Amino acid sequence: MHFTSESSADGVTQRSFTLDGVPGVLWHPDGSPLGGRPLVLLGHGGGQHKLGPGVVARARRCVRRHGFAAVALDAPGHGERARSAQDERFATEIGELIAAGRPISAWVARHTAVLAERAVPEWVAVLDVLGGQVEDLGPVGYWGLSLGSVIGIPLVAAEPRIAVAVFGLTGHASQTEAAGRVGVPVEFLLQWDDGLVPREGALALFGALGSREKTLHANPGGHLEVPELELASCERFLARHLIRAQ
Amino acid sequence: MHFTSESSADGVTQRSFTLDGVPGVLWHPDGSPLGGRPLVLLGHGGGQHKLGPGVVARARRCVRRHGFAAVALDAPGHGERARSAQDERFATEIGELIAAGRPISAWVARHTAVLAERAVPEWVAVLDVLGGQVEDLGPVGYWGLSLGSVIGIPLVAAEPRIAVAVFGLTGHASQTEAAGRVGVPVEFLLQWDDGLVPREGALALFGALGSREKTLHANPGGHLEVPELELASCERFLARHLIRAQ
Repeated sequence: MHFTSESSADGVTQRSFTLDGVPGVLWHPDGSPLGGRPLVLLGHGGGQHKLGPGVVARARRCVRRHGFAAVALDAPGHGERARSAQDERFATEIGELIAAGRPISAWVARHTAVLAERAVPEWVAVLDVLGGQVEDLGPVGYWGLSLGSVIGIPLVAAEPRIAVAVFGLTGHASQTEAAGRVGVPVEFLLQWDDGLVPREGALALFGALGSREKTLHANPGGHLEVPELELASCERFLARHLIRAQ
Repeated sequence: MHFTSESSADGVTQRSFTLDGVPGVLWHPDGSPLGGRPLVLLGHGGGQHKLGPGVVARARRCVRRHGFAAVALDAPGHGERARSAQDERFATEIGELIAAGRPISAWVARHTAVLAERAVPEWVAVLDVLGGQVEDLGPVGYWGLSLGSVIGIPLVAAEPRIAVAVFGLTGHASQTEAAGRVGVPVEFLLQWDDGLVPREGALALFGALGSREKTLHANPGGHLEVPELELASCERFLARHLIRAQ
């Protein structure tokens, strides 16, 4: 893990890094080590990146309100990362499909599943390195909606160090198998009028989650209209479980 | 409204009454009038009554934690009220249907719709009387799951004095029309493995609610296994809207 820059504001240290060519950001309280502190992995949505406004705001709240650390990565083909020819085609074609009013769900699922296959080992590598830096890595939570869930569901299924997750705004049959292997508490967000994710698919994915403790919160509105109160609810959910796991 | 008894514990006054032959209970802070204070109408579930443990606990929390008043009524055929021949048949037959493993949803919907037709004007009469006792009846909320929602949905649809509602554990096509006339904020609970209410029916009823602000919370488990955390969430939802409406 190669740290490239560091800044601080309001008691929150923000450190940019690259790990095996993947750019990421780590947030923690000024001057405090990671050891023993809960760590939140923040997955961003499609078209976003590790320093998107939602990611940064959530990371800073994790540190300031709860004393946690947080880390974000650019997903493959996003942010500072090079786009493959396939990524370029995807970015062009999705706009065309939406403009033509054609269903995009299966097509998005196919493309993002490929991104998830690349992203899961990148997150595992981050956990390995951060865990190697301290003797007592605290409990780990994952937060990611939409593309953040496409990546997060197989990650949480594969990664026993993650103790709790916030998912949502996704749902395709290709995710069912991994969802069944998720066993940690999950809060799952669904937008009732989501134009990008069919409601039945999202409900089926929630149903497929193997977790004994899981809760679905659905609200009116489109894919990008999750109410602030729900985001606050997810934050409470994550914090409650991470504090309990300490 | 004829008050028949009064007691007090931990600062909460509990007063039993009858109104046009319907038995009810009113809770409020000791020595304090109703005026200006939010009022929560508590509808009980099927087979329960106005002093069931869940109703009393919720009423006392409304008073002690939030300073609200609360009122509960026995639904037709429940608690201290006489059972009609039809009520008796229903109580016998539902046990037989469940024992035989037969679907009961349409049959329960038909019977409880009849109860709701009787109960709605009883609740309106309570509001009329309590509103007549004070110059400034505070904002009114409704809380009722299962049978409490079968009654509550047409009540809230018809009653402009009610500003917020908690519903759930119900869902049949016969409720769709009234649900469409509900316009206030609603938190709606659904149990994912509800053996009494088909999941599709409950989801469709949530979808049919006319409210701009509505939120569905679904959790694993059966009809009687709503997690305590969800009940606490509903209480926060109700309190937030009632305080805002003051």
